[in-house]
Amino acid sequence: MNFASDNTGPVHPRIMEALARANEGYAMPYGDDALMGQVRARIREIFEAPEAEVHLVATGTAANSLALATMAQPWEAIYCSRLAHIHVDECGAPEFFTGGAKVVLVDEEDARISPEALAAAITEGLERGLHYVQAGAVSLTQVTERGTVYDCASLADLARVAKAHGLPVHMDGARFANALVALGCSPAEMTWKAGIDAVSFGGTKNGCMGVEAVVLFDPAKGRELELRRKRSGHLFSKHRYLSAQMAAYLEGEHWLDTARAANAAAARLAEGLARTPGGRLLHPVEANMLYAELPRAAHRRAVGAGAQYYLSMEELAGGAEEDPIPVRLVTNWATTEAEVDRFLELVS
Amino acid sequence: MNFASDNTGPVHPRIMEALARANEGYAMPYGDDALMGQVRARIREIFEAPEAEVHLVATGTAANSLALATMAQPWEAIYCSRLAHIHVDECGAPEFFTGGAKVVLVDEEDARISPEALAAAITEGLERGLHYVQAGAVSLTQVTERGTVYDCASLADLARVAKAHGLPVHMDGARFANALVALGCSPAEMTWKAGIDAVSFGGTKNGCMGVEAVVLFDPAKGRELELRRKRSGHLFSKHRYLSAQMAAYLEGEHWLDTARAANAAAARLAEGLARTPGGRLLHPVEANMLYAELPRAAHRRAVGAGAQYYLSMEELAGGAEEDPIPVRLVTNWATTEAEVDRFLELVS
Amino acid sequence: MNFASDNTGPVHPRIMEALARANEGYAMPYGDDALMGQVRARIREIFEAPEAEVHLVATGTAANSLALATMAQPWEAIYCSRLAHIHVDECGAPEFFTGGAKVVLVDEEDARISPEALAAAITEGLERGLHYVQAGAVSLTQVTERGTVYDCASLADLARVAKAHGLPVHMDGARFANALVALGCSPAEMTWKAGIDAVSFGGTKNGCMGVEAVVLFDPAKGRELELRRKRSGHLFSKHRYLSAQMAAYLEGEHWLDTARAANAAAARLAEGLARTPGGRLLHPVEANMLYAELPRAAHRRAVGAGAQYYLSMEELAGGAEEDPIPVRLVTNWATTEAEVDRFLELVS
Amino acid sequence: MNFASDNTGPVHPRIMEALARANEGYAMPYGDDALMGQVRARIREIFEAPEAEVHLVATGTAANSLALATMAQPWEAIYCSRLAHIHVDECGAPEFFTGGAKVVLVDEEDARISPEALAAAITEGLERGLHYVQAGAVSLTQVTERGTVYDCASLADLARVAKAHGLPVHMDGARFANALVALGCSPAEMTWKAGIDAVSFGGTKNGCMGVEAVVLFDPAKGRELELRRKRSGHLFSKHRYLSAQMAAYLEGEHWLDTARAANAAAARLAEGLARTPGGRLLHPVEANMLYAELPRAAHRRAVGAGAQYYLSMEELAGGAEEDPIPVRLVTNWATTEAEVDRFLELVS
Repeated sequence: MNFASDNTGPVHPRIMEALARANEGYAMPYGDDALMGQVRARIREIFEAPEAEVHLVATGTAANSLALATMAQPWEAIYCSRLAHIHVDECGAPEFFTGGAKVVLVDEEDARISPEALAAAITEGLERGLHYVQAGAVSLTQVTERGTVYDCASLADLARVAKAHGLPVHMDGARFANALVALGCSPAEMTWKAGIDAVSFGGTKNGCMGVEAVVLFDPAKGRELELRRKRSGHLFSKHRYLSAQMAAYLEGEHWLDTARAANAAAARLAEGLARTPGGRLLHPVEANMLYAELPRAAHRRAVGAGAQYYLSMEELAGGAEEDPIPVRLVTNWATTEAEVDRFLELVS
Repeated sequence: MNFASDNTGPVHPRIMEALARANEGYAMPYGDDALMGQVRARIREIFEAPEAEVHLVATGTAANSLALATMAQPWEAIYCSRLAHIHVDECGAPEFFTGGAKVVLVDEEDARISPEALAAAITEGLERGLHYVQAGAVSLTQVTERGTVYDCASLADLARVAKAHGLPVHMDGARFANALVALGCSPAEMTWKAGIDAVSFGGTKNGCMGVEAVVLFDPAKGRELELRRKRSGHLFSKHRYLSAQMAAYLEGEHWLDTARAANAAAARLAEGLARTPGGRLLHPVEANMLYAELPRAAHRRAVGAGAQYYLSMEELAGGAEEDPIPVRLVTNWATTEAEVDRFLELVS
Repeated sequence: MNFASDNTGPVHPRIMEALARANEGYAMPYGDDALMGQVRARIREIFEAPEAEVHLVATGTAANSLALATMAQPWEAIYCSRLAHIHVDECGAPEFFTGGAKVVLVDEEDARISPEALAAAITEGLERGLHYVQAGAVSLTQVTERGTVYDCASLADLARVAKAHGLPVHMDGARFANALVALGCSPAEMTWKAGIDAVSFGGTKNGCMGVEAVVLFDPAKGRELELRRKRSGHLFSKHRYLSAQMAAYLEGEHWLDTARAANAAAARLAEGLARTPGGRLLHPVEANMLYAELPRAAHRRAVGAGAQYYLSMEELAGGAEEDPIPVRLVTNWATTEAEVDRFLELVS
Repeated sequence: MNFASDNTGPVHPRIMEALARANEGYAMPYGDDALMGQVRARIREIFEAPEAEVHLVATGTAANSLALATMAQPWEAIYCSRLAHIHVDECGAPEFFTGGAKVVLVDEEDARISPEALAAAITEGLERGLHYVQAGAVSLTQVTERGTVYDCASLADLARVAKAHGLPVHMDGARFANALVALGCSPAEMTWKAGIDAVSFGGTKNGCMGVEAVVLFDPAKGRELELRRKRSGHLFSKHRYLSAQMAAYLEGEHWLDTARAANAAAARLAEGLARTPGGRLLHPVEANMLYAELPRAAHRRAVGAGAQYYLSMEELAGGAEEDPIPVRLVTNWATTEAEVDRFLELVS
């Protein structure tokens, strides 16, 4: 019963097997391995983007920051939700990689920003001329930080606002696959057809060991991205082991299947919690992450029985048994129905 | 017959097995996995440094740059050899991570700098007061970029010069194990006992998939290093797979055995080349990397038979058959005697 | 009738005379001029801080950014009001000078932040461990960006919150003198006695040509500040002309007299506007800057007669004559009663 | 007898008068003053460059670094002489402003670099692919740091090498006027007609108080330069006082006359020193800066009589009376024949 994060679970056996297969003889280093050619071709195919630049790194923060650094100048703003991972969870990585761009926060609802709020944030800055940072880029998280998903029309609306000001749009797709299967659309529809210019395409949270692709639909920035990757220590010498993960991840429907499994587990959990006495979902549950309130007593039973998930140990400690305590639960490809049901039983 | 680099070879089976073993159930992310506790303890034991701060990253450039960033301010100089990897092969990573420190080059012989040359470089800058960058830190590469090794007394002499100016000393130990078995000394003797303050302790080139430890003998900078690692995207969420590699690498004498194998293959190669007609070693061969000259004709035979190593394709193309052409050959844990002998046969 | 800013007015004749006097013969460059010794001594005297480090630059943005760069690491937060000049009006200078620190915004009322809001901003970040930027420094603007002034007790309350988290406190004192005469306290009371660690002590807005002092009550950071100043191009070769301005500025009560004159003009303006039909002050007027609303018709008369001040030309263009339009008016040492009265007459 | 530097002398009375004249009434801040329009037009006229972008700052380091930051990316190299001011005398400012570009040193003779040496430096780096920093920009100092001058043909030869690799060329023209009158050519000939893309056009060393123009012949980078200037604290609020200096400086032949005076004084000094017993010029004297050797005894007499110039006090202290000691002497617009003659008399 570990719902702490989708990065606490194991690597999928298929990925492990691919790593073992890749471990034969010699291979060119630094991204010149043959497998990388396959990965590039496969990602271009999946995205219906035959010109896209594709580069691999090992962490989501690296993918986000490298992409953003090619999109925003040091004296520009990166607009994102107040809850965005790039603002809240990367210890200032966008500032570091861009050379000091300003992350400008946009109000959100269920972690989604609206075109109106985005437009207001951009416009407010424009009035200040060169005294304020200039408009630079927009970053959207898909799945959002509260487990909701932007539908393709909403993405397009947001991108339209950005484009009206000449700004490129980045998608933090750490949970790209989970969003995709939730929407049932195509990768192209969820990205460049909606106006997205660059994607951090996550593999790690969905069963890989540590691999993310940066996908740039405008290939003009490809060389810059490669140089920034090298310069930031994110170009792997034994790169074939990144390629192998991503190649196996994208084989057939594997990546979609694992995302479907994680989403299904979250849906089962959500359904159960909604029926739990004192339980309440705090945001719509649209992918594999869930925010809810449960009575203190319910948490005590779950934690006592070994369930793991983010909640405030301080809050757990004191107060009335029936007080609602907020919690985050994340499922992953390996989450079983039995685990979900056992948890629901404990908190009921 | 691949002598291109020690990062083109396969991962050692023991490391692969360790990764498979680590892939059980759930683990805490971001370095809080149980295996990391083992790694920390083992590295402290190996270095006889019970207080040392130990943190893992996946690339040597990350290890070097993060360590250096805790040692030199943006307005300071980092002194290193003209051939240093941090200067020549990291696309400006030290400048990026430090916020613009200046890499100041020191003359070398066989890629080793002398205490006199180091002292001269430091002193020259001091005369300029605040108009020039200030003295910051010293970085030494062990094994050097030409395959030679600093003995412990030389390291101590260099560190003494640094310390006389109050400067900390970093060791780029991408081939730490190869140097260690070449010298037959202890890790402590080759580092803190000689005055080294921080080590990039390499695993990748010696049979791991991608893992390096930053070892700080002064624990005061540990938290800063962690924050810089996070901020630069080098903190792995599924960190257990870094820990697992390093734990297996350091089990018993494994890491020394693989280094001994690589060094032995290089020695065999060097011995053979020295006896080859028209062959000449360009630098002493002290570890697992070898610089030599061979006649053009010899190269043509080797390359024609599929041997892989760094040489100028342009030089290979034209000119007299007996012209000497310089070349770099690197061996690794997986290099076989048969490969070495086959190569020697081809070039003879 | 120019109320656009206190940087649009002329330099006080006393400062011009001092520049002329300083223009005799030769002087040591780069801050080693004899006048700088006087300035240092005088500022230490004024602040009752015999150990304070004092360095001159020509712009307020330089003073603020250099001071902050010695107080916050690249991976840290600088807390300030949403309206702070360092956030809104310096095109990301704090981010540039610090190497990417994050400016974290605190809610304000009349441009003043409360201890509670500051504490909340700091605490919120702490919960995120190393995933978020760390707490770094606090910056307060005195006079604030809406023309209000923190009293000394409020400054002390804010500094106490900062100190409880180990954070240093910076004061952006671009209008330091205007605040000081408004409060009637001593420079020491308004700074280090209240817990302020570093001050950007402005001269430019109060009748100088272009000079600001960075005053560090903790001298330990003095050398770093000097190096950062040099490295950022803010060390003047012909430094005597900065010294001369500051020396003349601080001679006797001159700097307080000019501030009193500016504040008095603002008070007269405020009093008049409060009595003007349709006029309304938007914030308390405590120094030399004033935010008010006036009917469109009133603005038209004033602008038509050549009055200069910040208002939206767009807003002025359309709409009903009696619509209130917000405006900022700033007075300076040279503002005359006649100008004030003429303006009041026009808008009445 | 002050030959320490051309920044130790007084401001020319014409500049002081211009400052006084500019100090009338109110003026738009931040570069929008009317005088700036005149300056822009005048510089375009002087350079025969009607499209050039012209921006003022107060220091040479700011001018150089801002210009270079628009020309070289963080992952690129800036090629310059080993003696270049941007390398030796700016405490890493180019690294700071560019975000960590690498200053790559080119061998020189009399402080001039040759096209061959430049080409070699660029080519060497290219071989390393993305592992090394990429070729970025070239910076040439005119007058050089040893008092020599590049003739226009040499500048063109160097620019041709740069352009062959697609690199822009910057000129550090802190002593632009002194070089110009030495060559007797036009500003256009010495810059864009020779292939120079950007100039730091100095005023400070030639009799101004503190003003330098950045002149960009490619206007496309103008907005970036303005934003970088603002962000680095180099945009003056009371900008009219920068404009006034530059306007007066460029009125008629004033700027050329002052340069001619300084050069003539240096020539007189050089002629005298060449005839002095034990005296020897170390580099050709082509402008207003002079490197020479004089016997220790001669220095003692000069220093004893109050002459000021750069020499090592340590060297002066001990040794034989006839030992040659190297020295730098700089003349400026205010240097008189009497001072020169008095000095020559003392050292004879």
